[in-house]
Amino acid sequence: MSDTLQTERTRVRRLPNRGAYDRDTINAIIDEALICHVGFVVEGKAAVIPTIHWRDGERLYLHGSVASRMLRSLDRGVEACVTITLLDGLVMARSAFHHSMNYRSVVVYGTAQQVTDREEKLRALELLVEHVCAGRTRDARRPNEQELRQTIVLSLPIDEASAKVRSGGPGDDEEDYALPIWAGVIPLRLVAQSPISDERLTNGIPIPDYATDYRRY
Amino acid sequence: MSDTLQTERTRVRRLPNRGAYDRDTINAIIDEALICHVGFVVEGKAAVIPTIHWRDGERLYLHGSVASRMLRSLDRGVEACVTITLLDGLVMARSAFHHSMNYRSVVVYGTAQQVTDREEKLRALELLVEHVCAGRTRDARRPNEQELRQTIVLSLPIDEASAKVRSGGPGDDEEDYALPIWAGVIPLRLVAQSPISDERLTNGIPIPDYATDYRRY
Repeated sequence: MSDTLQTERTRVRRLPNRGAYDRDTINAIIDEALICHVGFVVEGKAAVIPTIHWRDGERLYLHGSVASRMLRSLDRGVEACVTITLLDGLVMARSAFHHSMNYRSVVVYGTAQQVTDREEKLRALELLVEHVCAGRTRDARRPNEQELRQTIVLSLPIDEASAKVRSGGPGDDEEDYALPIWAGVIPLRLVAQSPISDERLTNGIPIPDYATDYRRY
Repeated sequence: MSDTLQTERTRVRRLPNRGAYDRDTINAIIDEALICHVGFVVEGKAAVIPTIHWRDGERLYLHGSVASRMLRSLDRGVEACVTITLLDGLVMARSAFHHSMNYRSVVVYGTAQQVTDREEKLRALELLVEHVCAGRTRDARRPNEQELRQTIVLSLPIDEASAKVRSGGPGDDEEDYALPIWAGVIPLRLVAQSPISDERLTNGIPIPDYATDYRRY
């Protein structure tokens, strides 16, 4: 229990055996996912916005335009609930009732802080590019001062969090196993297709390996 | 403007040219996606939970256990923000700053109503199975009375909603096009792998075509 991220709020209530609270499980899900959904309260009501996230150690990062309502809300100290979900498969049980999905999800609750130090911000934005595509930082033009000013980077501590994971085949009621109905799992995977070069690309620039061989895991 | 789902709250503020408010665009995204992220307020703070959704006409459906905190909150009249995101690709610009993602997302705000009528509930749960896997309803055992009692089905009107879509290649600053940096798009797709039959499957039951040929679009 020395490094559990469980709190009363992050305790998985429904199907608690699917819950996990250790950093390794939580970090692996955060790192594989390309997008998160950020929930925050606006005028007493919830708003949920999809965005890119990344991680550095025990902190979760978000970024965007200085004009973003979400980032401005979080920067004012509004608490965020950041939820990240990876879909792994469709679980087809014999009964409609026991149909399910295999997934890995993480919920992080926290209050964001803005990264204002120039070097820290540059480093954070490099980690973002590397999170999305390892190797890309070497090639891409770095942010200039104006671009840095136009970008807000926020980070949240990954202190109050939980993972929820379902894997494996269907769990049917005992009497249903005798039914003549196919049951099993259809695995799902986010797969990269062949890269499409920009039509204005200068002749002779090859497609880098990190694009040709892109994969999340 | 006769069938726009735009309200002050659903108006896309950031990059408004990516916004759409017509039912066809919104419905297509809802129908392709397998999961949504439901935001709601608990004790003054936002919570975001991933779950399966489906659509019937102009209403969006959610379901789950009668023990689900989310469904019980929504059933008490707490407003929901349901966000659905499809990730279509990674956009690699010449500058780190202009890196982006291609995506299609929908946000629906609304207050849920519980489906209590037995026939309506059965029909809704059939549509759920068909949303996830067209053709599966013919095979799966239908819910019995106990299963129906254990399941809450809620629906929200799709009246206050917006879509946001980015597609196409990178948009770099004019002076960056001359840089010797590869730029383009890495398309991403949620792909089904070969079905894995349940280990307790009775001999001789073939894998149905809807599982072998599973695809979202």
